[in-house]
Amino acid sequence: MFELGVVYRNIQRADRIAADELAHFGSATVHEALGRVGLMKTYMRPIYPGAQVSGTAVTVLLQPGDNWMLHVAAEQIQPGDIVVAACTTDNTDGFFGDLLATSFLARGARGLVIDGGCRDVKTLQEMGFPVWSRAISSKGTVKETLGSVNIPVVCAGMAVNPGDVIVADDDGVVVVPAALARKTLDAASAREANEAEKRAKLAAGVLGLDMYKMREPLAAKGLKYID
Amino acid sequence: MFELGVVYRNIQRADRIAADELAHFGSATVHEALGRVGLMKTYMRPIYPGAQVSGTAVTVLLQPGDNWMLHVAAEQIQPGDIVVAACTTDNTDGFFGDLLATSFLARGARGLVIDGGCRDVKTLQEMGFPVWSRAISSKGTVKETLGSVNIPVVCAGMAVNPGDVIVADDDGVVVVPAALARKTLDAASAREANEAEKRAKLAAGVLGLDMYKMREPLAAKGLKYID
Amino acid sequence: MFELGVVYRNIQRADRIAADELAHFGSATVHEALGRVGLMKTYMRPIYPGAQVSGTAVTVLLQPGDNWMLHVAAEQIQPGDIVVAACTTDNTDGFFGDLLATSFLARGARGLVIDGGCRDVKTLQEMGFPVWSRAISSKGTVKETLGSVNIPVVCAGMAVNPGDVIVADDDGVVVVPAALARKTLDAASAREANEAEKRAKLAAGVLGLDMYKMREPLAAKGLKYID
Amino acid sequence: MFELGVVYRNIQRADRIAADELAHFGSATVHEALGRVGLMKTYMRPIYPGAQVSGTAVTVLLQPGDNWMLHVAAEQIQPGDIVVAACTTDNTDGFFGDLLATSFLARGARGLVIDGGCRDVKTLQEMGFPVWSRAISSKGTVKETLGSVNIPVVCAGMAVNPGDVIVADDDGVVVVPAALARKTLDAASAREANEAEKRAKLAAGVLGLDMYKMREPLAAKGLKYID
Amino acid sequence: MFELGVVYRNIQRADRIAADELAHFGSATVHEALGRVGLMKTYMRPIYPGAQVSGTAVTVLLQPGDNWMLHVAAEQIQPGDIVVAACTTDNTDGFFGDLLATSFLARGARGLVIDGGCRDVKTLQEMGFPVWSRAISSKGTVKETLGSVNIPVVCAGMAVNPGDVIVADDDGVVVVPAALARKTLDAASAREANEAEKRAKLAAGVLGLDMYKMREPLAAKGLKYID
Amino acid sequence: MFELGVVYRNIQRADRIAADELAHFGSATVHEALGRVGLMKTYMRPIYPGAQVSGTAVTVLLQPGDNWMLHVAAEQIQPGDIVVAACTTDNTDGFFGDLLATSFLARGARGLVIDGGCRDVKTLQEMGFPVWSRAISSKGTVKETLGSVNIPVVCAGMAVNPGDVIVADDDGVVVVPAALARKTLDAASAREANEAEKRAKLAAGVLGLDMYKMREPLAAKGLKYID
Repeated sequence: MFELGVVYRNIQRADRIAADELAHFGSATVHEALGRVGLMKTYMRPIYPGAQVSGTAVTVLLQPGDNWMLHVAAEQIQPGDIVVAACTTDNTDGFFGDLLATSFLARGARGLVIDGGCRDVKTLQEMGFPVWSRAISSKGTVKETLGSVNIPVVCAGMAVNPGDVIVADDDGVVVVPAALARKTLDAASAREANEAEKRAKLAAGVLGLDMYKMREPLAAKGLKYID
Repeated sequence: MFELGVVYRNIQRADRIAADELAHFGSATVHEALGRVGLMKTYMRPIYPGAQVSGTAVTVLLQPGDNWMLHVAAEQIQPGDIVVAACTTDNTDGFFGDLLATSFLARGARGLVIDGGCRDVKTLQEMGFPVWSRAISSKGTVKETLGSVNIPVVCAGMAVNPGDVIVADDDGVVVVPAALARKTLDAASAREANEAEKRAKLAAGVLGLDMYKMREPLAAKGLKYID
Repeated sequence: MFELGVVYRNIQRADRIAADELAHFGSATVHEALGRVGLMKTYMRPIYPGAQVSGTAVTVLLQPGDNWMLHVAAEQIQPGDIVVAACTTDNTDGFFGDLLATSFLARGARGLVIDGGCRDVKTLQEMGFPVWSRAISSKGTVKETLGSVNIPVVCAGMAVNPGDVIVADDDGVVVVPAALARKTLDAASAREANEAEKRAKLAAGVLGLDMYKMREPLAAKGLKYID
Repeated sequence: MFELGVVYRNIQRADRIAADELAHFGSATVHEALGRVGLMKTYMRPIYPGAQVSGTAVTVLLQPGDNWMLHVAAEQIQPGDIVVAACTTDNTDGFFGDLLATSFLARGARGLVIDGGCRDVKTLQEMGFPVWSRAISSKGTVKETLGSVNIPVVCAGMAVNPGDVIVADDDGVVVVPAALARKTLDAASAREANEAEKRAKLAAGVLGLDMYKMREPLAAKGLKYID
Repeated sequence: MFELGVVYRNIQRADRIAADELAHFGSATVHEALGRVGLMKTYMRPIYPGAQVSGTAVTVLLQPGDNWMLHVAAEQIQPGDIVVAACTTDNTDGFFGDLLATSFLARGARGLVIDGGCRDVKTLQEMGFPVWSRAISSKGTVKETLGSVNIPVVCAGMAVNPGDVIVADDDGVVVVPAALARKTLDAASAREANEAEKRAKLAAGVLGLDMYKMREPLAAKGLKYID
Repeated sequence: MFELGVVYRNIQRADRIAADELAHFGSATVHEALGRVGLMKTYMRPIYPGAQVSGTAVTVLLQPGDNWMLHVAAEQIQPGDIVVAACTTDNTDGFFGDLLATSFLARGARGLVIDGGCRDVKTLQEMGFPVWSRAISSKGTVKETLGSVNIPVVCAGMAVNPGDVIVADDDGVVVVPAALARKTLDAASAREANEAEKRAKLAAGVLGLDMYKMREPLAAKGLKYID
């Protein structure tokens, strides 16, 4: 959060396979697999429903009302990246639209996560370029003040280091530290394997109270049934 | 609001026919039929558009970050119920997802109204299990602290008693006290009968000013036209 | 903002051609063409996605919980108008629904922009009557207190004079002063002509850094690259 | 919440001694004594610091932008009452000022809790009439639409019945159901007796970890210390 | 709202006597005297309690995170002015602190109303320079992008023209159009003369119901008393 | 953000002298000295005005509605520390009150910064224990779920590492990374030395436009004066 005016060109991206495969599990499962941490604030919403992606973070620190650093970031994108843009203050301006998306897509980006506003949402949906943002706004921005690219940032309440894995879908945006990517993938796989069986039981009418053996701990806490 | 750690097993559900038929009218008409009361706060939004349901309330009081009581509530669901979950404090965590939905559906629930967060929204839409919530969030919850089931609660600013009728659609969530269900159904029917004729007149270009005879009372209040 | 209880019947509408053609460009381009001003607050959202309209403003000042003036406004609508409704205080009640929409449509209105709530959203989508609002709410309103029609208002943070051009789409709502309508249309056209070429270059992998010649000014501001 | 246009003249007020003495303990202790329920939303703030009161609730349901029912409520006030005003929708208008306060004070009211706005705050502080409100606002209100007095209401997320005990101070506003007033007073007294000894130990440097014997349960949950 | 990069040097200030004397009445009385319009959003709060001022508006349009135009505005201040600063987007940065306050004070300004953030609040209170703002924030701003001075702006939801009268106190900020200043002063005086007598009656226990003769209109609307 | 259930006992605290002396400069000057970064969200407010402190951070990660980790943190406090408490989700419960404050004070803590609620604010002011919080709330919390102590956290939008310097006053809360503490102290001293002279000039009527030599760059950007 503390260096302005710098661009780190060489970042350590998370394990590629883990970064790619985590998309399959979705943000809720990955969040659980991480130990119930890593979720950005719930005000981050997809600009259109249905996208589900994962990738490695290229981070950007923006200044309010100024999208210059997104142009700088474009050059640092490699295929499989997701750009994560924080801002030095709360701001909902439309930092990003279809032209930047065209450029990001040409560089191989899989999406954008921005703690700010986005515009041209109809075109972005047609292009299939997913964005998670705090706002949708037509308001354009200037190119006057330096931020940084590929420094550690806080985006929507979550610390993100360049190279971390981002998992985003309709449920939200989760950050997996690069060092935990493979371990999280394993945990997510194990968790999902587990879920199919549970789902079948629940669909057959078995109660979670019984399946998870909750009746005894509930009674121990003092739960009382009254007829 | 004042009893923690209890589950009421026998609740008095509203008149079944009224509880079922009110869905047809939608929340706006039912709200008017009730005398313009009963609407939950407008931050309660459907997780996907298009659902329109009514049913009898099974109420739940949750603790923040803890979904234990939803498992307890599942056992109390009867076909035609809608679960209404309040929380002892503002909280947006993802208390509810596809596994609980599978269980609720198996018990005959028609939906969930939760003053908290919901996750797995894409799956829930595929399953056709509607949820009205204050947030969408991947964040999972613990099972540590007791709340209650089937006590009176305040959900999104509205008092709900177990057995009350819930009417929910894209316009919001309305609570009809059990004792008023039948009367409200009658009023809603009368109101709707009335609307077709009005709509035809308005479509033909008749002004509300004339149809509702507003010109005189407007003039009496002092409205002035300036050319 | 300062006259209550008046209806101005003769307003000066913006140049018709400009008012009609600005819809084509969308709110983001028009906002830029205006010099990056004129956008309403981003809490104004379309009640359904995909609509893109422009038209001349008929303005309304409402009182909280009271939609009387919308009925008064209906009479002042001419084909090609968009009704812009402000309120004397923050209020999310459902001032507008399908009956009023039927009447507005019969009068030739192209949509409604309301710094308040809207209801019957499913029906409004079926009718194809677009609304931009701060909330969706079933709550009905009374008809007791005078506001005004066709006075200058502030709607969602933006000053609107009767006859101004409104451009609204999924990105937001922009207000173009009547006197600037033609000039703004020209600027938007020029801007768009410009964009196709840029888009092609960016899609081919040219960086904005080079296309916009940003490397030098960035260096001048002190941007440092670190390997 | 469901009856409009009625005033209940005879309400059952909570035990007078309990209603009066609970002020001494403050909202935090009373909230704990009630079993950690009963607190209104934290957006309810005192208009000036330092007041600490308790009393019996006279309830009011207001319409947005309309303070008529506060005048109706004045007549129902008895010495030792606190007026609790809810509104049928979110509204921050200045429903209450120094004239109404003069009247309420003459009737023996100890304060006002209003899920809406308040004005004349400097004069109210000089008068020593405490108000807890969601907003401060100069905006005046009309007298056009009926609400009710002394019906059950939901105020700032909490259900309040006429005659319940209200405890309010700088920490917030707690509602004690009339039937639990005496029992809550006893629990609060016991709790407070307990606190002096704890405070002395903590001031002497004893850790809560030891005083509350938390080390074992923390270890059982898996807490790890790393040097 | 639509001209950027301009400073109007000659503005028509409101009647001096009215601009000065309105302070005496406070924002609530002035708001009523204006016909219940003119109040800025209630999120505008004084940075310290107790100040009550009025003066003529020097308006500023700021860009987010940029306070350059406040320096430009300083030169346009004349004794008796209050600076009113709007921003092209929602922004809470600390645009204003003790250095600018020193300069504004030296020019004769009576205060600042800013739809943004303010810092150095302790020093400002010591200096006796009152500010009404949407936030308090240490965050500094840049000097890169042009806004304007003395154009019409919308500040916190209210249209302000240069030269209008601003009345601000603990209850909020009201804007009186220059042309209405004298008339509003007369109305406020009349209103206040009226209040002393009312206050005395209410203090003596007369009910508003009787003093304002409300019993009949309440009955006509259908109010029912239930014993 | 990613380790739950751990307590780091040995943390590297920032340079003591810098950590102590930064209080003198206040959050605004320190924020500038850091290069305009490091400020927590502006919703963090002091529970009473006037406190101005700095110290070294002991960090805590809380679970919603659960203050267990604050008891664990107490043991890790050394004289000169400020406790910084984040939460895994947005939560306003009253995690902290006078008993914990007594314990923290006995351990030598200078204050608490908590992205959650605080209670007993009147007593805390009497004790002189300053707290910066997002809310004031009577609501008590449980002791059921593990968080962590002295791990890196994000508190109110800002990354905080254990041992970092916290500077807090009426303007907000700034985080200075431990490694930058001495350098920031130097920069703040230089900045302040500079301010006295500026203040004197401005007080004498010199305009910032002239003192900062802004007229030329403003003209270069195109600023126009209109008479």
